[in-house]
Amino acid sequence: MTPATSVTKPKVLIIGSGGVGTISALSLTTNNKCEVTLVVRSDYELISTKGYSINSCTYGELTNWKPHNVAKSVTDAAERFGPFDYILVTTKNIPDASITCEQIIKPAVDSSPESVIILLQNGLGVEKPMYAAFPNHLVLSGISHIGSTYYHGHVDNKGPDNVFLGDFNPEGKRHPLSQSKIEEFISIYQNPDNKNKIVLDENVQKTRWEKLIYNSVFNTITALVNLDVTRLQINGVNEDLIRPAMLEVIAIAKSVGVECDASKVDKFIHIGDGLFYAPSMCIDMRKGQLMELEIILGNPMRIARENGVSTPILSVIYSLLKMVQFRIKEERGMFELNQEDFKGNSDDYARIFHDKYV
Amino acid sequence: MTPATSVTKPKVLIIGSGGVGTISALSLTTNNKCEVTLVVRSDYELISTKGYSINSCTYGELTNWKPHNVAKSVTDAAERFGPFDYILVTTKNIPDASITCEQIIKPAVDSSPESVIILLQNGLGVEKPMYAAFPNHLVLSGISHIGSTYYHGHVDNKGPDNVFLGDFNPEGKRHPLSQSKIEEFISIYQNPDNKNKIVLDENVQKTRWEKLIYNSVFNTITALVNLDVTRLQINGVNEDLIRPAMLEVIAIAKSVGVECDASKVDKFIHIGDGLFYAPSMCIDMRKGQLMELEIILGNPMRIARENGVSTPILSVIYSLLKMVQFRIKEERGMFELNQEDFKGNSDDYARIFHDKYV
Repeated sequence: MTPATSVTKPKVLIIGSGGVGTISALSLTTNNKCEVTLVVRSDYELISTKGYSINSCTYGELTNWKPHNVAKSVTDAAERFGPFDYILVTTKNIPDASITCEQIIKPAVDSSPESVIILLQNGLGVEKPMYAAFPNHLVLSGISHIGSTYYHGHVDNKGPDNVFLGDFNPEGKRHPLSQSKIEEFISIYQNPDNKNKIVLDENVQKTRWEKLIYNSVFNTITALVNLDVTRLQINGVNEDLIRPAMLEVIAIAKSVGVECDASKVDKFIHIGDGLFYAPSMCIDMRKGQLMELEIILGNPMRIARENGVSTPILSVIYSLLKMVQFRIKEERGMFELNQEDFKGNSDDYARIFHDKYV
Repeated sequence: MTPATSVTKPKVLIIGSGGVGTISALSLTTNNKCEVTLVVRSDYELISTKGYSINSCTYGELTNWKPHNVAKSVTDAAERFGPFDYILVTTKNIPDASITCEQIIKPAVDSSPESVIILLQNGLGVEKPMYAAFPNHLVLSGISHIGSTYYHGHVDNKGPDNVFLGDFNPEGKRHPLSQSKIEEFISIYQNPDNKNKIVLDENVQKTRWEKLIYNSVFNTITALVNLDVTRLQINGVNEDLIRPAMLEVIAIAKSVGVECDASKVDKFIHIGDGLFYAPSMCIDMRKGQLMELEIILGNPMRIARENGVSTPILSVIYSLLKMVQFRIKEERGMFELNQEDFKGNSDDYARIFHDKYV
């Protein structure tokens, strides 16, 4: 009796249908140990009718591919396919956007009281607003190492799906169900024959900081100057700019007790040698989309300031990128400046902006 | 006999027909104490037939205005209207462009053995390549404080023409004709009734450094983030970024014995309050044109390095802007990267680029 069996399968909702989310949906669907619902917002009409075309280093060429369920919004997903056992969040995390991740996932979380929230997202401090918004839910950390991009119905998956899953909190401070939920999710996500790879991560904060050694430096600087990593290096900045900036990230991590592996610096400086690769923040800037600035650089900078860590390079980069983010917000119409508001002493302009526009 | 009289008038060649050069031509023509030749390169057809339309706070509305002579190139000017007594250089100064200022003015200088070269240009160190290229010529320093922009035949002159003229060298190291040539040029340039203002500057290096307090900071940062000065200030950067960066400029100046007036910092922070003004480097970046980066920031940075002056903010800004300049050069087709050249260790890319592309 297949229907009876399928009812017992856990239900996974994936929110975020970019390069990461679609391959996660494909990994889970391949196993068929859970029922997968994918929220597809802007391209819903396209995907719900034609499905995805996928070119994957792992799963090969697929056309008209769909997960079990496709929903056009989180609310639609919750109403038609909920409640969910797992809510896998693969959206970008932009706390200064007009809608935050907590707000985006809320309809699903509220209607799935038992759900485990997995943040498969970059950056630091992404769990804090989730804890605050959903204090009764277990929130887990996922870090994805994957090469995958989505554009208009097509997924180009060049690097294999590689997930580190764990609890944001140190041992002893974890939710009682944490271990068993991590193990269950790994069991439904891990494909046979190691096609993909999902592993239990006992120290997710360290994993996040180590990814930041790359992201806080290359993502940010490429976004500022609008060049890919290799073009940065053609300008000879490995030693004068990139390495000392990466060492600043390591120093901030150390101030919260996280000892990063210093060999990561050399590894990350050279990881993209010759690839002419533009990181996500650079791509977002080029598209005029908001960047994941606050979770990639802003949160580390706040920790540096609190702990008195000297960050001469990253402080300047952050200050500059906040202005670029401001420009993108204005270009996207998130606010419209009235020049008459800014006529007096310029020392007051930030306060005026905050009072009138934020 | 008017022709005989006019023959004795000094001849002034103006190279650079943007907002500064056209108003200089107008100032000189108004006096009629010299014969003015203006080199107009890209818009020669337009200007030689229709002249300029000018909207000036000083000279009013003018249409079909032309100086005595209009030439389509420096060579054309030299052949038809030379030799010249004064060569007033009002072009941008971009030593890393495909053609330098020395190369641009060379045909006129070579055919005018007695000529005095006046560099009415921003930045630091602009005299050094001129001394090297034209060792037998007197080279003088002009600093313009003017609000004037040129676009396709039209000049919008909002702020009065205000020139500081002097010798680059300190007293005792000056050319024997220096003083008399400065006085003569002032006499032919100064309009009656103080319509414009040209003054003898006994300390041009200090004047240049003081202008850099503004330019090295606001020009550069606005170019990096693509925002005008007021929008920078709406982001609250006056104290954390602008002031300390300006103090770095003052510290570099001090290392070469130039004591800038520290009150300039507050003056310059607030000089554009509420004006939503985009400085020239920001405008150039927006237009995809090369920026005057090396004379505005590069030369001060080289002095800082030689003299061991700490410049934590400006060093990062300079490093970033060199990459933006690189991008603009690539976009303008000044080089075309072959990705195959950049496949090995990225530490070698700068050398490879230098060897193959520069």
